[in-house]
Parts: sequence; C-alpha cells; structure tokens
Amino acid sequence: MKKTWTNCWLEYPLIQDQPDVTITVASEWDGVIINRAYHELKRGLESLYHCQVTQAVVTTADIRFLKDPGLSAEGYTINAKKDSCTISAGDEKGILYGSFALLRQLQIAQCPLHELTWQETKVPSNPLRLMIHWDNLPGDIERGYAGDSLFFKNNHILVNERSIDYARLAASAGFNGLVINNSNVAGAAIELISDRFYAPLSRLQEIFHQYGLKLFIAVDFTMPMLMGDLETADPTDPDVQSWWQRKAKEVWENLPGLGGFMVKADSEGRPGPYAYGKNHADGANMLADAVAPYGGLILWRCFVYDCQQDWRDTVTDRAKAGYDHYMPLDGCFRDNVVLEIKNGPMDFQVREPVSPLIGGLAKTQMLLEVQITQEYTGQQRHVCYLLPWFRQILDQDMCCWEGPSKVSDLIQGKRCGKPLGGISAIANTGNDPNWTGHDLAAANFYGIGRLAFDISLSPETIAREWIRLTYGDQPKVEEVLFDILMNSWPVYEKYNAPLGIGWMCNPGFHYGPNPNGYEYSRWGTYHRADHQALGIDRTTAGTGYTAQYAPNLQKLYEDVETCPEEMILFFHRLPYSYMLKTGKNILQHIYDTHFEGAEQAAQFLSRIEGLAGLLPDDVYARMHERFTLQKENAEEWRDVVNTFFYRMTGIPDEHGRTIYP
Amino acid sequence: MKKTWTNCWLEYPLIQDQPDVTITVASEWDGVIINRAYHELKRGLESLYHCQVTQAVVTTADIRFLKDPGLSAEGYTINAKKDSCTISAGDEKGILYGSFALLRQLQIAQCPLHELTWQETKVPSNPLRLMIHWDNLPGDIERGYAGDSLFFKNNHILVNERSIDYARLAASAGFNGLVINNSNVAGAAIELISDRFYAPLSRLQEIFHQYGLKLFIAVDFTMPMLMGDLETADPTDPDVQSWWQRKAKEVWENLPGLGGFMVKADSEGRPGPYAYGKNHADGANMLADAVAPYGGLILWRCFVYDCQQDWRDTVTDRAKAGYDHYMPLDGCFRDNVVLEIKNGPMDFQVREPVSPLIGGLAKTQMLLEVQITQEYTGQQRHVCYLLPWFRQILDQDMCCWEGPSKVSDLIQGKRCGKPLGGISAIANTGNDPNWTGHDLAAANFYGIGRLAFDISLSPETIAREWIRLTYGDQPKVEEVLFDILMNSWPVYEKYNAPLGIGWMCNPGFHYGPNPNGYEYSRWGTYHRADHQALGIDRTTAGTGYTAQYAPNLQKLYEDVETCPEEMILFFHRLPYSYMLKTGKNILQHIYDTHFEGAEQAAQFLSRIEGLAGLLPDDVYARMHERFTLQKENAEEWRDVVNTFFYRMTGIPDEHGRTIYP
Repeated sequence: MKKTWTNCWLEYPLIQDQPDVTITVASEWDGVIINRAYHELKRGLESLYHCQVTQAVVTTADIRFLKDPGLSAEGYTINAKKDSCTISAGDEKGILYGSFALLRQLQIAQCPLHELTWQETKVPSNPLRLMIHWDNLPGDIERGYAGDSLFFKNNHILVNERSIDYARLAASAGFNGLVINNSNVAGAAIELISDRFYAPLSRLQEIFHQYGLKLFIAVDFTMPMLMGDLETADPTDPDVQSWWQRKAKEVWENLPGLGGFMVKADSEGRPGPYAYGKNHADGANMLADAVAPYGGLILWRCFVYDCQQDWRDTVTDRAKAGYDHYMPLDGCFRDNVVLEIKNGPMDFQVREPVSPLIGGLAKTQMLLEVQITQEYTGQQRHVCYLLPWFRQILDQDMCCWEGPSKVSDLIQGKRCGKPLGGISAIANTGNDPNWTGHDLAAANFYGIGRLAFDISLSPETIAREWIRLTYGDQPKVEEVLFDILMNSWPVYEKYNAPLGIGWMCNPGFHYGPNPNGYEYSRWGTYHRADHQALGIDRTTAGTGYTAQYAPNLQKLYEDVETCPEEMILFFHRLPYSYMLKTGKNILQHIYDTHFEGAEQAAQFLSRIEGLAGLLPDDVYARMHERFTLQKENAEEWRDVVNTFFYRMTGIPDEHGRTIYP
Repeated sequence: MKKTWTNCWLEYPLIQDQPDVTITVASEWDGVIINRAYHELKRGLESLYHCQVTQAVVTTADIRFLKDPGLSAEGYTINAKKDSCTISAGDEKGILYGSFALLRQLQIAQCPLHELTWQETKVPSNPLRLMIHWDNLPGDIERGYAGDSLFFKNNHILVNERSIDYARLAASAGFNGLVINNSNVAGAAIELISDRFYAPLSRLQEIFHQYGLKLFIAVDFTMPMLMGDLETADPTDPDVQSWWQRKAKEVWENLPGLGGFMVKADSEGRPGPYAYGKNHADGANMLADAVAPYGGLILWRCFVYDCQQDWRDTVTDRAKAGYDHYMPLDGCFRDNVVLEIKNGPMDFQVREPVSPLIGGLAKTQMLLEVQITQEYTGQQRHVCYLLPWFRQILDQDMCCWEGPSKVSDLIQGKRCGKPLGGISAIANTGNDPNWTGHDLAAANFYGIGRLAFDISLSPETIAREWIRLTYGDQPKVEEVLFDILMNSWPVYEKYNAPLGIGWMCNPGFHYGPNPNGYEYSRWGTYHRADHQALGIDRTTAGTGYTAQYAPNLQKLYEDVETCPEEMILFFHRLPYSYMLKTGKNILQHIYDTHFEGAEQAAQFLSRIEGLAGLLPDDVYARMHERFTLQKENAEEWRDVVNTFFYRMTGIPDEHGRTIYP
C-alpha cells in the first residue's frame, strides 16, 4: 500500500549525509516498548543521516538504554557526550520518551549524533496526558475537521498502518493515553464493551500499548439499561452495581491494562445519576468501585448545565453551573475518580476565564479538558495555534490556597495531594492525509502533548520545535510559520466576538459569524447587545458568578477597572461608549479589531505565498487554499460583526472605513 | 390489518338511521372510474344512512349515471329531484366528481337522499389540479410535517391500502394528478424511470388512474449523465435528444397514461440548460418534444435565482430573478410545456406580492405553485388555514392586458389562449394517522383541491364544507373551528415577521423566530433592520423590482401612500416612526401585532378546550397538544421579535407591556 499521509513532526528531514556511519543501539533490558524505542531511533537516525542503525551489546553501543530505578515513572535522563549516549529510565516508557527526545534534540542542534553534547532529565509533569476522541462508530467524528475516524468505519474497528502511525505521533508528543470513542454519545457505542469488539479492540490496544498509550473507553451511564439487562441505572441499586462489576470483570479480562472509562452524565441530554435523585459522587464512585480491582480509572466529565434555558431568564447563568454542581461534592470521590473539567465555564470559546471549579476543588483530583479540534476557533480552516492560550490558562493563579495555586499546580494535584490528574485534549485528528486538515493544526496536537509532558514549556519553544521537526532547518520557513503561529490566536480572536463575549457564531455547526446566532436560544449563551450596551453583568450585583472565585480573583473580576479587558464583556455589561485603557471606546475597539483581524488574515496569506517552493507542493497547496479561505472568511466576520453593531448604534467608524449599512 | 388512520373529510358521519332503505345505483356506461364512483357512493351512503346500496338497471335506479357528450371534460351535472337523482357527465371522471359532489351536498343539507332537491353543473376551472409531493425514495419528505412518505420506504415503492385512501381523498377534493417524487432532488430518484420501479409504479398508477389522478414524475435535467449513458445533458446535443426520446418511449411503454415530467433546473444547485449556454426554452422544449408523442407534459419550475448572493450587495434583488429569467422566453415554449410559478417572487412566505412573472407572461401557459405543507407557516404545529391567502392571490388583478387579468384568469389561460394551466400545491400529507399532522391542516389539502376545481369558491364556504364533512353536523364544533380556521392565517402573520418583510425564521428548518436568521446569509433574503429603519426599497429608485409589474400595479406599489400596508416593508424601506393608516407607527404596529397574535393563539387553545367531548378523543388530544405548543411558540415569537426591535431602538411599548430587555 502506497503511503499517502504525512509523518508530521516525525518526518526526520536529512541533517547530514552519513551513509558510511553505523550507529549501534543496545539495551540493558527488554520489552515491547523498549523494542519500539529502538525501532523509532533506527527509523529516525537513518532518515536524519542516511546512516545504518543496528543493535549491539550494551558495552559497545553508541546509544545505550539503561535502567535507573531512581527515576520516577515515565521519566528519563539522557546523557550525550559525543562518543557515547545513554538514555536511562525507571520504566520502559521512559526509554521511549528519551528516544524521541534524543531525536528531537538532534534536529534542534542539527548535528551528527557523535557531535552532540547534551544532558537532560525529564519526568512528565502530569500523570494523565490524554487525547480525547469524539469518534463515532459509523466513522464520523463529532466536531472533526480532518476527515473521518482513524479508528472506526461502518461500525467496525480499524486496525491498520495508520493506527501505528497515530500511536507514534501521540507517544512522540508525550501523550500516554486516549479515549477512543465519543463520550457525547457513548450510548451509541455499547458494542465497544461487548464480545463483538473485544478482539479487534484488543489488537488496537496492543499497538497503543507498545507506544505507552493507555486505552480508555467512553461509556454511557445507562449501559445496564441500553445493553438490555436492567430497567434502571440507579447507582445505589445493587443490581446496577453488580451489573457494572460483572461488566468490568468481563472488559478487563478481554482488555487487560485498559485505562478505564470516561463518562458524560446528566449533560446535554445524556442521562445520569440525577434521574434517580442521586448525585455525581454516587454515580462516579459506583463505577470507580467496579473498575478498581483492575486498576481502572473513572474520568468523569463535569460539563453539566441546563441546556433548556430561557433567554428571557436573566438570573440563571450557565457559567455558574459547573461550580454549583460539583463543589458540594469536593472530597466525596474515590481515589480512582478524576473530574474532567473544561478550561472555561462555558464551552471552548476563543476567550474565557478559567473555570472557577478548578480553583474551588480542594480535595479532588482533576483532569483539565482543553479542545484542540477547532470547534469555535476556525475548524481547521483557519490557523489557530492554541498553545499561547493554553499557557495563559495554566499560568492563571486561582489564588485559592496558601500553596501553589496556578492551574498547572492544581491539576498536578499539588493542592489535593492526590497522585492523578493532568491534561486532556479533545483531538483534532482524522484520516486526512496530513492528519489534522490544516497542516499547521498539527502544531496543536504536538504542542498540547509536549505541554502536558513538560508543563514549563513556552508556546514559542514548542512552535519552533514543531516547525523544525516538521519542515527541517529552513530559516525562512521557520520565521514565517513561527510568526503566523504565534499571531494566529490573537488574529482569530480579533475578527471574532469581542472582549470575551463569545458565541457570535452560527448555531449547531459553530462556524462563521452570526452575532445573534445564540441570542434567543436555549443554550444560556447571550450577549444581550442593544443599541446602547452589551455584555453580561456576572458580578455579585449581577448573576453572582464572580463569587465562585477566591477573594483575590473575585475582586479582580468584580471591578471593571481591574478586570482584564480582553474578558471585560464576559464579566460586565458596558455601554459602547465605555473607554478602554487603550483610549478607545468599546464600539471603536470592535471596529478596529475587526478591521485589523481581517487585514492580518490577509497578510498571513501573503506571507504563506512567500513560502512557495520552500514547502512540499502538497503542503503548500493545502495551506494556500486554507489561508485564502481564512482571508475571505475573516472579511466576512469583519463585515458582519461591524455591520451588526453599526446597525444597532448608527455610529460610524472613526476612520471612515467601509462598514456596510 | 386494523385501520388506524382517519378518513378525513370522507368520514361520512351518520345523518339519519335508515337500515330498511335500499338505494340503487345504475350507470349507462362502464369503466374503472365509474366503478369507483359507484363504490364511493355505496360506501358514503351506507355510512350516512346505514342503508343498503346495490346496483340496478338504469331505468329503475335511484341514482343514475348518464352520459352527456355535451359536457366538457371532467364536468358533471347533478339533478336531484327527491325520488330520482341523475349524475351526467361527458367522461368517467365527471361521474366520479359528481358522485363526490352528491355525497357532499347530502351532508351539507343533512337530509335523506330522497328529500334532496338540488341541481348543479360544474366543469373544473383548471385543467391541471396537482398535488406536488417532495417525497424522497428513502421515505422522508422534504418539508414534510406529517410523518414519512406514503409512497416510498427504504428505496421501495409502497402500494397498499393507504395508496387507495390517498387517491380517494385527492379525487374527492378535486385533484386530477400528482407529482410523486421530490423535484428538488430528482437526481436521487433515477430509478423511478428504470426497470427497477416500472412494475410497482405501474400498480400505483393503476390505483391513481381509477380515481382520475394522472401520475407525474420529477426528473433531473442531467438524467442522461446520471444514468450513466452520456457525458453531457446539453439540450441541443443530438445524443441527448435521442436519449430522452428513447427514455420517453421506454417510460410510456411501461407507464402508459403517465402525465409527464416535472423539472427543476438551474435552481438551488440543480443543474440545467445554463451549464451549456442554453436557455430554459431550449431545455424544456427538448424534453417536450421527447414526451409529445405520448401526450406527455413538461412541468417546468421557474424557481431560479442566485442562491450565492452576498448580503453586502444591495443591488441584486432575488425577487426580480424569476421575471428576469423567464420573460425573455415568453412564447418560446412548446404547447406541452407548462411553466410552474410560485405565487410570490420569494418563497412561500406568510405574505408576498404576487409574482410579477404571472402578469408578465402573455403567451405562455402557467401552473400556479402554492405550498400547503406549512414550511414557513407553522409546520403543521401551528394552525394556518391558507385558503384566505390563496383567495387573495387568485383575486389579485395583475392589470396586464385589456382582458380578464386576475391571477385566476391568467392561470386558466384566458390571456395566452392555451388550454393547459392550473394550480399545484406542494403537498402536506404523510403517513401520520390523520394524514396531515395537524388535524386542521387537512382543510388545506381539501381546500386547495376544491379551489382548483371551482375557482369561484370562497375560503369561508370551503371551511364550512370541510368542517361539516369531517366532524359532522355539530354547530358548536363548526362555530369554533370555522372561527379558528378563518383567523389562523392572520394570527400567524401577526406574530411572525411584520408587514411583508418575511424571513425572520431559523435558517434551514424555517421554524421559530430568528429576526436576523437570514440577514447575513447567501439567500438574498434581507430586511436590513437597523436602529432607525427597516425594509427593502424595491421601487424604481431602489432595486427596480416594481418595474416588473404592469403600470397600474407598479404605480400602486411604488407609492408608499398607496402600497398595501400589509406588504409595505416588502416594497419600501421605512423608519420605525413611519405612521401607518391605522394611526400607529411601524414600531408600535410590530409590538401590537405581536402581543395580539400571541394573545389570539392563546385564545385558540381556550376555544379548542371548549370542544372537549365533542371531538373524537384522539383528534382532541392531538389538537390540544398542537394548540398548546402554538400558544407557547407564539409567545416565543412575540418576545423574540419585540425584544429584537426594542434592543435596536430602545423605544418601549406605548402600553407598557412586557418586552424583555
């Protein structure tokens, strides 16, 4: 079969032609993951140098895999001293990560192996580093913008060359697990935990295992009913409990080493414990008890809110829902339950404050949920490198206790003192030849994996790494792509909804401008723009949302003078005439940012056109098509949003630029 | 099989118990349609009187079918003189229509047959009286709100008891033909004109034929390509022409008596002659020549416009498209081509002016296309009796020549002097037990058939007939339902988009309020409401649409003083402060009508509740559910539309009623 897809950042472009060199690799100990590490090194080095890579005995090898029981799980130490290089680890996964790290460093340094002098010790910042797939068994992907599922087709499981390459990409970025199916409609995937799928799923699991990836399955809370056995899913019902115990036993017998289950309950129409007057700790703990004997985890999604809201109701505030639902349960969850919490209180808008639940929970381990599939951020037709945004989220100090209380600290369990926690990303991959639709969207796949592994990394470092690994040592390519990546999120934000207000998109598919798109809907997502003012008062004088934050943060957001202006309309209702610190009023800010955003999107296209001939033809053609579309769409956003506010206010642009009447 | 569906207006509720009476029926001549007429009389009379109905010889019969060659096609004369009743006709269909007319009259008079003294001669006003089904082969119905298709299921044709009952309903209302499949996606139905479907289609056709219904099939203009034979569909290509000639021969050999083909070409993404630089006369005539040897017709839909419009373009006006496309071709069509023209220039909004094309075409026969499936008028969840609207349309004088120039005259061919023309209705039927979802929506099915047959009928007459036939002689039921039916269209209009502006609905599914729903879209459907004004200037100073009307009408619409106010925002852009003849300005008119509309919708519910016990339980339950929903939805419309304009203007209701901020 001809390979038609790209290797992304595992392309390994030639550094130096060394056909006469033979590099030997040896390992102190053995195992399937170590075996993969060797093959990854062989593949990478042979591509980077056109050299030979063979196995040797430990004492004579150029690269030696050493066992170091002192290193924490998944950690590694690399010691490269020109003529010798060792990768030490406490477990096999450490060797694999070390091998990928060595290959990465060689490309950064752009030197032969025997010229590298480098020492690095890394232990992953987060024990859980997950890709969350919203793949459906028929093969489509909810909010997928890069083709159909890599894992499912026509209600069958795919096990093929791409399964392996997916695992290579995920592991090399630093991921250590994945949820394979769509938790939003997990009830449609009952067969995943049935005899029909155990065999192919086990084959897929074996591939993942070789790359250190734990498989998780999203299940529906009502599986005991859906699978035809029981009339209830009440978590306190002994029949339900024993159903899950039997099912867990069966699942782990067939899929030993399975990571656990993900559950979305009582959310957006999915059933859950509330149907039985029980709370989410009852529900999660019941499942946790069932999977505990096998080392299984329960990843419990906290995306619970009233999705039948009435826009005329100005008291209910969807932003408050997560905190309201889960704070009363803090400390009530089993040790093998992890609460999965979206970064913001709404739903992956281009800008939101950090969910107050993250600062609220003191005794509960958390998995941060971010979204790299670009549902609200351009659907992989627009470039939107999200790592600067994720960096801001992780650096947000929640000011919630005397200890370290940045989001990055809290998800690592520094407050609750529990060992699990981490980062999960709603995946942006599919069977498109380049994996992610937009070639530059692969930087988000790579980037969030890297950040989850090493939470200290900057978005700049990650961007440069990714460009170098993907397109080789080409200064002009690096300069242009780095600039575009680093500016892409701010530019996208400029031509979207202003100042943290969100939701000015088409309902349902979430693409394209529609200023009133969610205004009269049932989703609790309103800006309430009228001819004088816009925004939601979420202070204690308004919906009271700010009170969900610790005092310092509450104070910051509560006061319109100190509230970060990029989110000011999320927290405050303000007149168009309100003067921002830039010296512009809100209306002019809207006009200016929309003109600027569209202008900058046009510049992206020009800059990409400057890379013609420097990028592979297919990559250039795809990028050119998408940047052209982005330019046109940005103009559409600019004009629709500007016209919306112009029609509302009758106030023209101060600089006389065209706003359509 | 237990019958679970209703008979609608063929229920024949008891008039008088006459178990000892035997009514005899005899016919001077024979045929399958006459045989049906006898069985319909037998079924109806036995139900109305619990009497016996048998066949007799002509001289002794109570009811005699006589042949009268002097009567025009499909016409009948009934002469009921207590002891004898004759139904005379020039053809079999006349006998069938006369039989249904007799049964109808007996129910209106509420007397035994032998007490009826009545004389009536009727010849159908329109030669074409068609139900247009947008049924898809998988079984769904585009814009269907009454269940799945009666004709298709899982890509098979259904021939069953409901096929017969559909034919009975359609014939008794006065229809004489139907298009069975969805012309909007006719390319998906290529199998209808292939060996796979001829046999079952022929069985269905036979049922229709017995009730005087001609079967029409919607075809795609590119069938020669879709069916795999040719690389072009160019109507001037000899291969294309002979393909269609061969196909027509094959079709009529298998389906003799077929009415013809319907075509939607160059419309909403469907391909057509324009792709080959040819015009629509080229396209229609080529097909017309192919089907002419078999007496086939081509029904050519005129719904052609640019559906990739840019909202920023204020010059292009979708309303002008039909006239612009077809006027240059007036007189160029074959005699067996009929142009099918929507009543308005846009698309079945709750209020539109009559399409200027209808007044424009002088030499071309036309089929008026109206929509009884309630796409934009409440989707059979709201009651909306459309006959008052259709009456207005038919009565509109187009002032386009010295002869009779009402729409009803023009579609009858009084101007072009050609024999074909008539009325077609996009059907509102489906496999719901009551056929039309909302029980009261059956009045539209019945009503448009009756109106097409007898174009002089008033909506009031039709409503009373339908109520009486459906629910029997119950004065209270008649009073309430008549009032609701007659007020339903005005009420629906009140809480919808104001003053002819249209399109304030959710895109795609066209249900529910969304004032900006189509505002920035590609569909050419804008109101351009801002903080001061709204509406489109379609005068000669604006888009020039008014110039498509004859001088008198143009003058009427052009002048804001004479323009009918219910359509004033369709023709003029006006400030909210513009004073209507009611003494209200436009903004207050919007507020008032929306408050009134919701209030009246609530009254509908109360009035229906007064019929508890008088309607069959299932009918009452269905109605109650729908009127409850209508009440709630009308409040939603009221609040969303009022809030939209309040936010835009900041001007409160003069009467201080609640408008949500």
